[in-house]
Amino acid sequence: MRIGVTLGDPAGVGPEVVAKSLTAFPDDEFYLVGNKENFDLMLGDLKISRSSTKDQTNFVNISGGSVELGRVQKSAGEIAIKSIEKAVKMAMGNEVDAIVTAPINKESIILAGSKFIDHETMLANLTSCKRVSTVFETESLRVFFMSPKHLPLKRAVENVSKENVMEAILSADRCLRLLGLPNARIVVSALNPHAGDGGLLGKEEIEQIGPAVREVRKKEKKIDVSGPCPADSVFHRALAGEFDIVVSLYHDQGHIATKMHNFFKTVSLTVGLPFLRTSVDHGTAFDIAGLGKAQPESMIEAIRKVKKYGAVYKEKYARLSRETGE
Amino acid sequence: MRIGVTLGDPAGVGPEVVAKSLTAFPDDEFYLVGNKENFDLMLGDLKISRSSTKDQTNFVNISGGSVELGRVQKSAGEIAIKSIEKAVKMAMGNEVDAIVTAPINKESIILAGSKFIDHETMLANLTSCKRVSTVFETESLRVFFMSPKHLPLKRAVENVSKENVMEAILSADRCLRLLGLPNARIVVSALNPHAGDGGLLGKEEIEQIGPAVREVRKKEKKIDVSGPCPADSVFHRALAGEFDIVVSLYHDQGHIATKMHNFFKTVSLTVGLPFLRTSVDHGTAFDIAGLGKAQPESMIEAIRKVKKYGAVYKEKYARLSRETGE
Repeated sequence: MRIGVTLGDPAGVGPEVVAKSLTAFPDDEFYLVGNKENFDLMLGDLKISRSSTKDQTNFVNISGGSVELGRVQKSAGEIAIKSIEKAVKMAMGNEVDAIVTAPINKESIILAGSKFIDHETMLANLTSCKRVSTVFETESLRVFFMSPKHLPLKRAVENVSKENVMEAILSADRCLRLLGLPNARIVVSALNPHAGDGGLLGKEEIEQIGPAVREVRKKEKKIDVSGPCPADSVFHRALAGEFDIVVSLYHDQGHIATKMHNFFKTVSLTVGLPFLRTSVDHGTAFDIAGLGKAQPESMIEAIRKVKKYGAVYKEKYARLSRETGE
Repeated sequence: MRIGVTLGDPAGVGPEVVAKSLTAFPDDEFYLVGNKENFDLMLGDLKISRSSTKDQTNFVNISGGSVELGRVQKSAGEIAIKSIEKAVKMAMGNEVDAIVTAPINKESIILAGSKFIDHETMLANLTSCKRVSTVFETESLRVFFMSPKHLPLKRAVENVSKENVMEAILSADRCLRLLGLPNARIVVSALNPHAGDGGLLGKEEIEQIGPAVREVRKKEKKIDVSGPCPADSVFHRALAGEFDIVVSLYHDQGHIATKMHNFFKTVSLTVGLPFLRTSVDHGTAFDIAGLGKAQPESMIEAIRKVKKYGAVYKEKYARLSRETGE
């Protein structure tokens, strides 16, 4: 498979975790997108063998100003932004099949003039895609996040309306089909403790979530959806094989669940672009940049997921676009 | 150690999980509190050897009407309530050192006339104790729940005030001292995604939680408290040894974290009564009552925790009561 990998913010641990990951995938063709000078310096400093990655990697150099490790700076933000733009161009031009991204720093990209604060909104804008969703996968646990994912908790609670939950279920179903998992079992997590305990502990389950689940079931016979189920057991039940994806109603609900199951193996999938994008779940870790201490486990998982789903995703997306005209 | 164990709702799996747990503790003296006829029938039906528990167990019979397995009913609720009342009397009269409770059914105890819907409020009322808190422990992860624990999420968010967070920190500190863990490291979880991300994703961290942490630090030099820390990493950091207890700001935050770490080994500790009470984390499981399928793992853990903390708790509580006159 041809995989585009952005090296992320060159002042952070991105280049290091990418370099440490590639040997785990001897059969794939990688296109590393980032600043070559910075990458080579890092390899030298950390005594990472060039030969371990040589045969399978192509380097797509992103030129830029000098970068000091471990701090917020405009030049690093510029390289990070250009790397993403280039990787998207390559994926849209069919030069790579899917992309994996290393972490960027929000403040650095803002200094560099970005209107966006994260990968997801940047990718949606670059591809003009409107229905872009986040799915987390940690081993056998899959979580879909209701949009918008980044809201204060107070606003996330207000966001739980019948219409929004219905839209989330339909989007989760679309994600599953794009990932090549049709007829999957979707479950919606509850919002309140004990799923509201019959209304004693909150009414959203009775007034919004339950009706949303029932209306989707009625209108879309092919969608297997249930819930709302208490949040403190639904993720465990999904892990045990009862459900294929859990719809999380707010950021920390799904984040706590996946990260407590396996902190290092949680991978984020961006679904709804013409190509699959996966991402590590950690940040730039400026405090340990350049020290050789960064663990590549999360990056290795992100590459594994892109290999697992990337090819089928591309095919399904193309077919779905033809069918729906989206 | 002398441990009082209530058998819980006799129509549920409580008696079964207790019977299956006792052989794991050959050196302790148990006082089983429940309906003896029901218990003996269960032992016979499930072919659980009486001899395995004979030497170490004393049975405190709670008489009552006949009970049909697996359903909500008044007679079962009556036995469950009387068992708790008796166990509390024994603990207050120094006949047992601590108590462990098997699950009760909320609807059954309400049918039986209870004003309370759970163990905690019932125990607080029976002992006239006001500052009663819940602590979860799952392996090395300890979580303190800000009161009141059972609130709709919308109200839980509104409940996050500087005053309430300060009170929660002080209560968590008191719990730790009662459990024999002085100088422990307390951390407060954040409420919003990314701990509010500098105010972009919610202001409670800046306006309420942060000031509460700083004010406790200033006023109570002995209390080691930090936070707010993002909820999706703080529990992981506590597990890794960085903190001794995490203050959870709402029910599902701490519940999802502990149960995703180890669903079967999560034990609830009620702290603030004159004796320690621990509890299994599962319900009456009416669907499998009488089938012999119930797993005793959670009950075994609950007994382990009462053995771990029960004796020191009793001593510390007595000393604290003398010192503070509470």
